[in-house]
Amino acid sequence: VNIVLVEPHELESGAVELRDRRAAHIHDTLRGVPGQHIRIGLLDGPLGVGTIASSSPQSVTLTCVFDRQPPPRPPVDVLLALPRPKVMRRLWAQLAALGVDRIMLTNAERVERPYFDTHVLHPGTYRPLLIEGLQQARDTRLPRVSIHRQFRVLVEDELDALSPASSRLVAHQGVGPSLLASVTADPAVRWLIAIGPEGGWNRFEVMLLEAHGFRAVDLGSRTLRTDTACVATLSLLHAAIADRVPATRAAG
Amino acid sequence: VNIVLVEPHELESGAVELRDRRAAHIHDTLRGVPGQHIRIGLLDGPLGVGTIASSSPQSVTLTCVFDRQPPPRPPVDVLLALPRPKVMRRLWAQLAALGVDRIMLTNAERVERPYFDTHVLHPGTYRPLLIEGLQQARDTRLPRVSIHRQFRVLVEDELDALSPASSRLVAHQGVGPSLLASVTADPAVRWLIAIGPEGGWNRFEVMLLEAHGFRAVDLGSRTLRTDTACVATLSLLHAAIADRVPATRAAG
Repeated sequence: VNIVLVEPHELESGAVELRDRRAAHIHDTLRGVPGQHIRIGLLDGPLGVGTIASSSPQSVTLTCVFDRQPPPRPPVDVLLALPRPKVMRRLWAQLAALGVDRIMLTNAERVERPYFDTHVLHPGTYRPLLIEGLQQARDTRLPRVSIHRQFRVLVEDELDALSPASSRLVAHQGVGPSLLASVTADPAVRWLIAIGPEGGWNRFEVMLLEAHGFRAVDLGSRTLRTDTACVATLSLLHAAIADRVPATRAAG
Repeated sequence: VNIVLVEPHELESGAVELRDRRAAHIHDTLRGVPGQHIRIGLLDGPLGVGTIASSSPQSVTLTCVFDRQPPPRPPVDVLLALPRPKVMRRLWAQLAALGVDRIMLTNAERVERPYFDTHVLHPGTYRPLLIEGLQQARDTRLPRVSIHRQFRVLVEDELDALSPASSRLVAHQGVGPSLLASVTADPAVRWLIAIGPEGGWNRFEVMLLEAHGFRAVDLGSRTLRTDTACVATLSLLHAAIADRVPATRAAG
């Protein structure tokens, strides 16, 4: 945890009383004492500084000043074939830490239907994990999440509204130009990357993606587990975007 | 699991009887029946094809033909400040899947001493995890692992022999040119990348690394958890190397 995130409804007259893991973190890990300053952020709002007014293992009260803009919303959306619940649980915080604006989870032939009925897709489960990732990365912007049981409906009817004007890429193994080369040569300002299931998209799914503007980019020759592949893909995409527009990186 | 790895001592007259998770994988997941072909590899040796001679949930016998070279040993070594055991356990398979030749785990000021006494550093624990990562990535070359309780002795006295003639990089946040730009402009054929602990290297450690040829490269502005940072760093390094030398990628 590199900043402590506070929700707008928790603020009262510029102060917040924390009674959950954040209190334990400030009291036990940071050994916070009254008067000490803590980096904070307002969820989906600015960054700032909290001054400890009182601190015990159960309750920490902070006086909050928010005075700094967070990093801009990431110019990256991800369209991810829903992985199995154990993997998805591990991914939430990492996706938020790496930086994505919108996470679209979709069905595909090689996605098992029961995956959609697990609690790992309930906001009550994933929201705290996303916040954990934001606290790690010192960001305040909660990724937007949507879940799509019909791949075709998503791609044909919904994608243009969900991720407008984005350059669309589909991650492959050994097909197409490298992701780095492709993004470096791309004048877009926003990207949408599709990451398939273990075992890949089927032929119909690939054709549908390509018919809707997705270009194949190569991630290299090694087959990776879905969670490793997600982290690898998003890291590459962010690094390539940053190298293409040095001003974006310097401002980050 | 994308190939099944066999150890040389398990082979007898060109056949192997599997009685562990590999048997369950072939029988249950691949629904293997006699006559069926399975992708296999010989640990630290060639790739090949196994023909199922008999198959039950407890025991699968394969007749093995090894006829193809595996990918070359990765031109990447990693010097990693030992993360906490839970994170290290998650990392082993991912490191092997991403491709590293040598893994050097080291102490640092911000590494807690008890981390060195956990079973996650015993070959009996990590070797199966490394093999799991190789089976994912269709590689046979087991990374070499060494554990170093004295950072200074490692850097001053041992590193030249462990990772000879490598271009040395130390991953930072917001310091130095980007990793991509740095590696793309680097004529080296072998790389060693140092990845620090949560909280970073201390001043002395950074100075020692720089005095021994490590150049700072920037990973971007977001602070990542150690395991996410490792996957991100190694993906970037491999992608940058591949883009620099197209022949290497084509051969992968």
